[in-house]
Amino acid sequence: MSFQFNKIAVVGRPDDERIAEPVRTLTSHLAGKGLELYSAIPNEGVNRVEESELAELADLVVAVGGDGTMLHAAAIARKRDIPLLGINRGRLGFLADVTPAEMLTCIDHVLAGDYQSESRLVLEAVLQTSVGEHRAYAINDVVLQRRETGRMVDFETSVAGRFVNNHSGDGLIVSTPTGSTAYALSCGGPIIDPRLDALVLVPVAPHTLTDRPIVIPSDQPVEIRLHERDETKADLTVDGTSMGEIKPGDTLTIGPSEGRITLIHPPGYDYFDILRSKLYWGKDGRNRGIPNGS
Amino acid sequence: MSFQFNKIAVVGRPDDERIAEPVRTLTSHLAGKGLELYSAIPNEGVNRVEESELAELADLVVAVGGDGTMLHAAAIARKRDIPLLGINRGRLGFLADVTPAEMLTCIDHVLAGDYQSESRLVLEAVLQTSVGEHRAYAINDVVLQRRETGRMVDFETSVAGRFVNNHSGDGLIVSTPTGSTAYALSCGGPIIDPRLDALVLVPVAPHTLTDRPIVIPSDQPVEIRLHERDETKADLTVDGTSMGEIKPGDTLTIGPSEGRITLIHPPGYDYFDILRSKLYWGKDGRNRGIPNGS
Amino acid sequence: MSFQFNKIAVVGRPDDERIAEPVRTLTSHLAGKGLELYSAIPNEGVNRVEESELAELADLVVAVGGDGTMLHAAAIARKRDIPLLGINRGRLGFLADVTPAEMLTCIDHVLAGDYQSESRLVLEAVLQTSVGEHRAYAINDVVLQRRETGRMVDFETSVAGRFVNNHSGDGLIVSTPTGSTAYALSCGGPIIDPRLDALVLVPVAPHTLTDRPIVIPSDQPVEIRLHERDETKADLTVDGTSMGEIKPGDTLTIGPSEGRITLIHPPGYDYFDILRSKLYWGKDGRNRGIPNGS
Amino acid sequence: MSFQFNKIAVVGRPDDERIAEPVRTLTSHLAGKGLELYSAIPNEGVNRVEESELAELADLVVAVGGDGTMLHAAAIARKRDIPLLGINRGRLGFLADVTPAEMLTCIDHVLAGDYQSESRLVLEAVLQTSVGEHRAYAINDVVLQRRETGRMVDFETSVAGRFVNNHSGDGLIVSTPTGSTAYALSCGGPIIDPRLDALVLVPVAPHTLTDRPIVIPSDQPVEIRLHERDETKADLTVDGTSMGEIKPGDTLTIGPSEGRITLIHPPGYDYFDILRSKLYWGKDGRNRGIPNGS
Repeated sequence: MSFQFNKIAVVGRPDDERIAEPVRTLTSHLAGKGLELYSAIPNEGVNRVEESELAELADLVVAVGGDGTMLHAAAIARKRDIPLLGINRGRLGFLADVTPAEMLTCIDHVLAGDYQSESRLVLEAVLQTSVGEHRAYAINDVVLQRRETGRMVDFETSVAGRFVNNHSGDGLIVSTPTGSTAYALSCGGPIIDPRLDALVLVPVAPHTLTDRPIVIPSDQPVEIRLHERDETKADLTVDGTSMGEIKPGDTLTIGPSEGRITLIHPPGYDYFDILRSKLYWGKDGRNRGIPNGS
Repeated sequence: MSFQFNKIAVVGRPDDERIAEPVRTLTSHLAGKGLELYSAIPNEGVNRVEESELAELADLVVAVGGDGTMLHAAAIARKRDIPLLGINRGRLGFLADVTPAEMLTCIDHVLAGDYQSESRLVLEAVLQTSVGEHRAYAINDVVLQRRETGRMVDFETSVAGRFVNNHSGDGLIVSTPTGSTAYALSCGGPIIDPRLDALVLVPVAPHTLTDRPIVIPSDQPVEIRLHERDETKADLTVDGTSMGEIKPGDTLTIGPSEGRITLIHPPGYDYFDILRSKLYWGKDGRNRGIPNGS
Repeated sequence: MSFQFNKIAVVGRPDDERIAEPVRTLTSHLAGKGLELYSAIPNEGVNRVEESELAELADLVVAVGGDGTMLHAAAIARKRDIPLLGINRGRLGFLADVTPAEMLTCIDHVLAGDYQSESRLVLEAVLQTSVGEHRAYAINDVVLQRRETGRMVDFETSVAGRFVNNHSGDGLIVSTPTGSTAYALSCGGPIIDPRLDALVLVPVAPHTLTDRPIVIPSDQPVEIRLHERDETKADLTVDGTSMGEIKPGDTLTIGPSEGRITLIHPPGYDYFDILRSKLYWGKDGRNRGIPNGS
Repeated sequence: MSFQFNKIAVVGRPDDERIAEPVRTLTSHLAGKGLELYSAIPNEGVNRVEESELAELADLVVAVGGDGTMLHAAAIARKRDIPLLGINRGRLGFLADVTPAEMLTCIDHVLAGDYQSESRLVLEAVLQTSVGEHRAYAINDVVLQRRETGRMVDFETSVAGRFVNNHSGDGLIVSTPTGSTAYALSCGGPIIDPRLDALVLVPVAPHTLTDRPIVIPSDQPVEIRLHERDETKADLTVDGTSMGEIKPGDTLTIGPSEGRITLIHPPGYDYFDILRSKLYWGKDGRNRGIPNGS
């Protein structure tokens, strides 16, 4: 099943010169087809609106940029679960999986209903402190990280009300499958197929060497609390954006948000293709084919 | 909901002296309650039968031993999905989570219907060769491992018909959540909550450093084929038992089996308790609480 | 060969109650032997002096506490390479390898010349900025770590003037063999035998998965420079104590210091004993002895 | 200081077509300069001799092929420490660091005395069994690996007579710095600068998660013994070539050999250049420059 898209929001970093050109090409192409265009980036044939209004106006969001721009666009699209199509400025991205070269062909396919759509988990993080409640949404990950250098942060985790572990180290990543190929991978986490409704808890530089990544069902809310120590503080980051500070006494709860993100992929999209390309699989420069070849 | 158990199979390694004593205590206790007992281990009040007959006779399997015995008992119980209760000979196991000390109290609870039951994924591995088809079932894992030392095995993986990757290295582990804390953990895989219907593919000593563990939905069959090279051979192991050799031209397919395993846990059982105990969480001997304390 | 020790400095955290008692026992024992005692902790028979004066007055430093106290005492002892003996407040430490229970026996051995002495590498870190030069000494490690969360730090390393690599990630640890069992181990670094004159460079959560720890000869100075990006800043930490901030344009140079640290060990000391004890070797709770025992 | 080379041995896999062409170009060039050439590969102007005779006849060994060929050539050159120059058949190798394209220019430099020479550690492995003693030499590594699948091998290590650890797992790699970028790297070992006289012990898939790589001085002989268990057997591999089987009761001792290997590099050779090229540093396909960019 596919939707008919008529009102298209275009999202990108307006100050990035590598973006301006493909955005202009794209909007000119779309305007020529008589579609309604909305963007914070001024261009001929485009209704210029604030980014905050895009979610109300559009039935398709097209983001042009890297995966960072995609995270930003996803935050917009998430509010009303508007399908999101990502055009990378250069090579393939995990989220922006259309190249500028194939952009116009791809968008014509999509407008003709020829595309794959995929629903991705979004996390809701709620920080409860003595003064109130903060809420944020993550496509990739929620990261707790010690603030002071030269000192570990001590915290405990529980899952659906059951105590999991006391941790000491640099922090913890709670990642979606989408985020599993980002920061979590650098900290020793596994790759998680986005079709799996799962979270992964990845300790960052854990003091205890057996404190390993745990994959849990995504409907199991994770709770994190700092241990009481005079000076302990940690920062929270959601998709790379600061959510403020967590202190002893605060409770951070992370679970699936009600809404999800719908990604639009060109026909022929394959998650494993992207993985192979991004991780340079098959391209280890070390010799092989010869016993123990160094 | 719980079942009424009347016919109980007792499984253990008859030659292990540490097992004989708790098995005797157990069967004496159960015989005193007028239950039908079946076992390959001779004891008073026990109907001695072949292990192969147990699945047909019993409605509860009680295994006494380590997790190895549990894997063996699970292979028996799997055939008709008979609930399985594990009594460890010493400290807690991942599967055998009742200690001898609490054995009699626990069994009384279970017989009174006071227990937790948990369904665990079982894998079916099918090896297709030029001469036929071999089939085996795994509670923990299916392992492909190079036969010759000093030489890598080259193979490719696909998931639900889609190509994933070419691999070179010592081999590959396809593990259930149950097996994720066994060999897969030693090879860098994540811990997977057993409630998650997922598999993990863990490359063993991969030549390519970015060839990392991937967690996929369990309903996605994994196919593995060796690459054609003169001398390539690899052994297959299912739950630690040899399944024979795989050669270029053969196809190994691993997916969920129709049957699952039902584990019986004492009231109050908690998976994370077991993890903490088995992985010595909170017991790293390195000092802490002091900046960078070595 | 061994020295005769007459003037003994006692170092510990005066506010730690677990320290007060063993310190009193120790100083009373030493005063009874007619030795000159110096400490910032007041006790009968002890010349109370400022910590800054200890290095000038003593020919042996005895530290009571954890490895953190040892690092602090080592900073004192380093100045004139005064031998250092560490008494742990509880179980064995990597540096403080005498327990309170064996403290008096051990000190008598040491005073009688019956001990092992061991020389350990100390690093000198020099930070050159537009406004001057900062210098600090590390027994364990020098750590560069990104300041802002949600953003990688980009930097480059060179060794003895030769470019090594561009790095992106959370930071970099430059560790001595002594520090290799501390933070560096949590970040994937190897254990390095303290007899080896080597450094290890351990990337912290590197973006590039092939950016792995490198062990180099200790006489090869390491240079680190941040890449120019508007907002990049990173903190430097030396043995867990802040050395301030490094900015693009600054140069951090890390090499062996002229002085080293001399550790005094009780007779029978064995580095591998300590490793086994601290890392709980032989104590993995996961079953074994059975094929793939989970 | 440099040597004058007159008698040149040429080594390569005679059956490899990619080798035949550069070998012919090379020998024709060298014969034209009036040098004495020796090889097991027949070519005009070349004295055809058995490989076993090469070490007695030549004062320079030139190997054409991959790092596997280099290991083979090094085994020849090691006997009399004849300098060894490696020409790779394609891109750069760790050991064969001259490309065919620059081969003739490079060899002219070398013959004119314009080159870098580098001495590399060689390991001697001695296996003592009830029936005698086997001896082998490793440029890269000595590997102990379990023979049976589905079962761990249990063994103990000591260094210079001091017990280090009991291990359970797939095996152990004892690697030189040269081998640290080969199999050891795939098993989690560090990269070791070849100028460092060190060994690294890398456990393969260790059961105990804290059983981590240890770097020790190369003059400390390592002893390995299997634990007594009925069925235990393990294979030994030296630079990828089988050295036979080790059984309980046997002792494997690994230490520095008397001889070393002298590698000849072209002017401008840089170890870190090779590392960057082989490990694709700076080429992670995952986006960056954007917060947590996936």
